[in-house]
Formats: sequence, structure tokens, C-alpha cells
Amino acid sequence: MTLPATHPLLDGRTAASALVTTYRGVRGDRTPVWFMRQAGRSLPEYRELRVGTRMLDACLDPAMASEITLQPVRRHGVDAGIFFSDIVIPLKLAGVDVEIEPGRGPVLAKPVRTLADVSALPDPDGADFTAIEQGVALTVAALGSTPLIGFAGAPFTLAAYLVEGGPSKDHIRARTLMHADPEAWEGLLSWAAAVTGRFLRAQLLAGASAAQLFDSWVGSLSKADYVERVAPFSKKALEPIRDLDVPVVHFGVGSGEVLAPMHEVGADVVGVDWRLPLDEASRRLGGGVTLQGNVDPALLAAPWPVLEAHVLDVLRRGRSAPAHVLNLGHGVPPETDPDVLTRIVELVHERGGAAAEESR
Amino acid sequence: MTLPATHPLLDGRTAASALVTTYRGVRGDRTPVWFMRQAGRSLPEYRELRVGTRMLDACLDPAMASEITLQPVRRHGVDAGIFFSDIVIPLKLAGVDVEIEPGRGPVLAKPVRTLADVSALPDPDGADFTAIEQGVALTVAALGSTPLIGFAGAPFTLAAYLVEGGPSKDHIRARTLMHADPEAWEGLLSWAAAVTGRFLRAQLLAGASAAQLFDSWVGSLSKADYVERVAPFSKKALEPIRDLDVPVVHFGVGSGEVLAPMHEVGADVVGVDWRLPLDEASRRLGGGVTLQGNVDPALLAAPWPVLEAHVLDVLRRGRSAPAHVLNLGHGVPPETDPDVLTRIVELVHERGGAAAEESR
Repeated sequence: MTLPATHPLLDGRTAASALVTTYRGVRGDRTPVWFMRQAGRSLPEYRELRVGTRMLDACLDPAMASEITLQPVRRHGVDAGIFFSDIVIPLKLAGVDVEIEPGRGPVLAKPVRTLADVSALPDPDGADFTAIEQGVALTVAALGSTPLIGFAGAPFTLAAYLVEGGPSKDHIRARTLMHADPEAWEGLLSWAAAVTGRFLRAQLLAGASAAQLFDSWVGSLSKADYVERVAPFSKKALEPIRDLDVPVVHFGVGSGEVLAPMHEVGADVVGVDWRLPLDEASRRLGGGVTLQGNVDPALLAAPWPVLEAHVLDVLRRGRSAPAHVLNLGHGVPPETDPDVLTRIVELVHERGGAAAEESR
Repeated sequence: MTLPATHPLLDGRTAASALVTTYRGVRGDRTPVWFMRQAGRSLPEYRELRVGTRMLDACLDPAMASEITLQPVRRHGVDAGIFFSDIVIPLKLAGVDVEIEPGRGPVLAKPVRTLADVSALPDPDGADFTAIEQGVALTVAALGSTPLIGFAGAPFTLAAYLVEGGPSKDHIRARTLMHADPEAWEGLLSWAAAVTGRFLRAQLLAGASAAQLFDSWVGSLSKADYVERVAPFSKKALEPIRDLDVPVVHFGVGSGEVLAPMHEVGADVVGVDWRLPLDEASRRLGGGVTLQGNVDPALLAAPWPVLEAHVLDVLRRGRSAPAHVLNLGHGVPPETDPDVLTRIVELVHERGGAAAEESR
């Protein structure tokens, strides 16, 4: 099975968009721009819509998830929507008892810490992604020629939540399990890879034109641990969507040491966090990999001339890659002034891209 | 003024110790070992002693701080004590209104976010370190030939607390200030450098035989920000102790990109976190720098054969540096079984050091 003929990549809606062509490695006249966490708490219209609705309920309400996804596209004129969801949604849909505690984050009723716990995890094939498929379909219909990006957490980041039972610093329990019980670890990451793969595939078949795999916590790992005990499962998570020929972005925080293996799991584009300049990231990747990133979110609250100079510096360094999608180096902080994001989009559309570069 | 003649480095007590000679770059028959956060919550005798006493009160009670410092030396047979204190103690002694909220960390009554706030900070010369000096003197008298390490937070890490007003993720407000208001930033870091320098000097004059500067949060910075906006102030913090000729260790978490500039601020030894193998750290430092580290704290809870193999691997990789002090790659997690730490000390004393290496 491949993408349906009515899919936006096949019916002519998004295949020639700035985002999709850039993700495919072709530098065009326009540098596309979107922002991780563009949908969400930085927008007053989001805060208004969410009143009285819990986070996971919002993600699982197709109309609400779609509306939230569309809000930043309308407001900022970004080059992509990213489907509004939460990293634990596929766990919940697979049958894991997880809730989001406001101000704290995801909390599991029962952490997964032994081989027996891993064996007791629900069958990933039992997950029902209907609400997600409906939300994606609604969103894609409304977006028209603007592509939608599907997303999922990578197996390590999901496993860290499952082992810790909630947010954690340095994810130390998960990293202990990795070494203390390799059989349980491999079982857990295989399970997470299966869930992630199915979640991504559901979003893509329903109409998303690209996928982003978030390994948010990869920066807590040594390169050796990443390569030996994590990357094989990230690769496995991408296998169920390989036949769809949809561009895949792989992003992690604090990932400077593992950019190359993150690319090698089968990503087309590597997302870079704010710590590493794009020219250095491109060097570490051998110069041939399309990059996404990496405006420092801390600069969003700086005076405009400081932020403007930084964005232009990011565009300049992004020239060292074959193609570049401008984004932040991490998610939009909740307290961000949304007008600043709109202004960045205007700046990037005016000053990014091949034509603007050549005319300088 | 230099060290008093009765100082342990001058009166013959600690100058020839395994720790001090190794910190001075000489590999001896014994690889010294101590653990960051060896004093504290992992020890039942600590938890018992602390009942009813608040954290900062314990730090400022000379007898209690000394006893807490001595507990892990007695129990584990480590090669050094590190004076029990908290990173915000010098701020408090300088007159900043700060408390430790159990389960949360340091919280400031009034965060420092503008140039006016910086100007209103108390005079660093007004700090009274008498309680610290008394605690250090008591400890040094009890330690005999075991050296005591003094410690302080580096200016960036202190500034991050001051700007955020408490613990924070990615220290984004501090990093915003760094770019948004360079004048306030420089004023704040100069202030923190002055406090840190005085705090370190007080501990050294009172009898500490080495100093460790902790820039715990340096991993949130790009290399450029570290080099341009942070390192000059870490260098400044070390100036008040340069004439004392006491070895200085510089440690940061997630510091793989900035090891060389961290060395260049004037450190004799670089502490490496668990992410970067010591042989790679040594390579990045040009091969001539003494290293400290870097057993992964996550492995402390793994079965002994797994941990033992890891410790031996750390010792092996540490051979790539001129000299090596074994430590963890971060602090002892509170839930650590203390017997495991004792066992590591025995292993390192048996298998580390030049003689053991040559006999293999």
C-alpha cells in the first residue's frame, strides 16, 4: 500500500510547495519557515479555545486538534502546519494509562521498569488512530496547498517517559535500564518503535506531506549508547513509512554529538537545536544533508534588531547545507509574543531563498 | 598574601597526596577517586543528621557542614573531601534573599532581570564568610592527610539562578538577558565572578587544597555564547585565587563543545560529564590536560559486573590524559546504594594507577 491518489503529495497540492521541495533537498526561491510548537500556548486564540478542555482530550478531538493546527498557519503565514498532538498520544491510543498533569507533564499510572512490565504492554497493533486520521483529514482539507507535517516521539524519548513514569532530569532510570537489563530495554524500544511507526503511518496516509521524528531527550546519551542502544529502534520506527516516499525530519535537543547517526536512521532532513551553528552541523554531516533550524528561542524575547541579526546569521549559515528550512532550535516558549514569530516569517520570506541570496 | 604556612599544602599534610599530585598532572601509583555530591542524600548518616535542619542552615553551621563533609570520606575511603555547601551559599552570604525549597531547589525573593536590578545587588566585598572558614578549618583538621576540595558555582550558573529566580529548563531568561541587555549581563556576571572568587579564596585560605568551579548549566549554551559572554567571567572568578597556586578543576554538564575554552579560563583539570568518553575529551583538549570523571551515574544502579566493566573502561580511557582522577560524570543520585560507591573506590584503588596498569 502506498499513498492514496487523493493525497496532497500526489494530487498536486503540496508536492511543489516550498517546504516539500526543500525537504527533498532542492533549494528554491523561498526559504520555508515554520516553528516547532507554533500551535499552542503562545497564541491567545489557542488559550481561549482550550479553556475547559484537557490537553489529551484536545488532541483526540478531531475538530479541535485541526483548528489548533490551523491557527498559527493563518496567523503567521508559515510554510507548514504541524499536526497538534502530544508525544504521549500514541501511547494512550495503544492503551497505556497516561495523563497530562498541568504544569508537570505526562504522568503514567504504572511505570515500565522490568521485562515483565514490558511484556505486559498492550499490543501496538491494537491502537485505534481514527481520531488522529480524522483530525489530519480535516486539517489537510483546510490547508490546501500548505503541507501538513505529521509527528511522533522517537522510541528513546517515549521509553524515557514509560520508564520514568513522568518527566525527569537526565532520564536516569531509563538509562539505567538500558544497561542493567538489555533484554527489557530492547523489548521496550521495539514496542515503542512499533507504536511510533503506526502513528506516523496513520498521519501520512490521512494526508500529511512530511513527518518529523522528535527524539527530544537524545542529548542525555553518549554517542556510543545512542548508536548501539537507541538508533536501531529509531530506524525501525521509520520502516513502516519508508514505502510512502514522504520526507522525514529527525530532530533532537543537545544532539551535536549524534547528528550523523540521527541522519543515518533514514532521515532526509536533520533538525538542529540552538547550540550548534548550522554551518558546523552541516560539516559534521558531510555537507550533503538538508537542515532545519535553528533560531535560539531565547532570542525571541530580545529586541528586534538583535533577533533580526540572529535570524539573518542562521540563514547565512544555512547556506552551507544543500537546502534549509528555517525553524527554531527548540519549541516556541509559551510566553513568546506571537507578533515576533510573524515578523520572523516575513523576514525569512523576504531575505531567505536562492533569489534573495543572489541579489545581495 | 599567599597561603599561610600552616596550610595543609605547605605543612606537608596534603601536597604529596594522590589527589593533589594527580591534579598537578603527575600520574602516580594510585588513581585517586572521589564523587561529586558524595556528601549528602545518598548516605543514611547524612539523612539522620539533617533531620530538622534546613539545607542552608546546615551549610552555615560549621560543625554540621564539617561532619557532613567527613561522612563519605570515612565511609568510602575516597581520596578527597569536598566541602559541603550549596551553590547559592555565596549569594546568600553576600546578602541576596534566597532560600532552598525542598523538592524544588533555590528560590530567590526577587529575580535579577534589569540593569537596575544588577545595580541594586549587594556589595560582594560585604560578604561574611566566617561560617565557611570555620567549617573548612574544622574539616581540614579532621581530614589529616586527605585533601579538602573547596567549591563554587561559576558565574554563568549563579547568574542563571539570579535571573530565573529559581531552577529552570534551558535557563532561557538568563540566555535572553545575555543578548537583550549586554550591559546588564556583564554587570551581573562581573558581580557573580567577584562573589565566586571571594568564596573560593576564603575556602582555600582556610585550608582547602584544591578548588572546583562548577558551571553546571554550561551545556545550555552555544560555544560562541560561552566563549564571548561567559568564559571571560569564569576567568575573572579564578583571578582572586591565582596567586595561591592551588590546583583548580573546572566541571560542566553537557560541556563537550566547550571543553577547550573551559580549560583556557585557567583550570588545571577539566571535569568531564558522562556523555563524552575521556579519550575523546582528551583529544579535544590537545592531549595535555589532566582529566576528572566520568562514570555514568545511571550505571550505579546496574548490576555490579556491568558497572565494574564500565569503571574499568573509564580508567582505560583516562590513560589518554597525562593524569586522571576518577569521579562520576555528574553528582551521586540521591537513591544510590552507598555500598556501590565504596566498591568503586576499592576497584579504582586496586586497578587504577601506573603500577596496576603496568602489571596488567
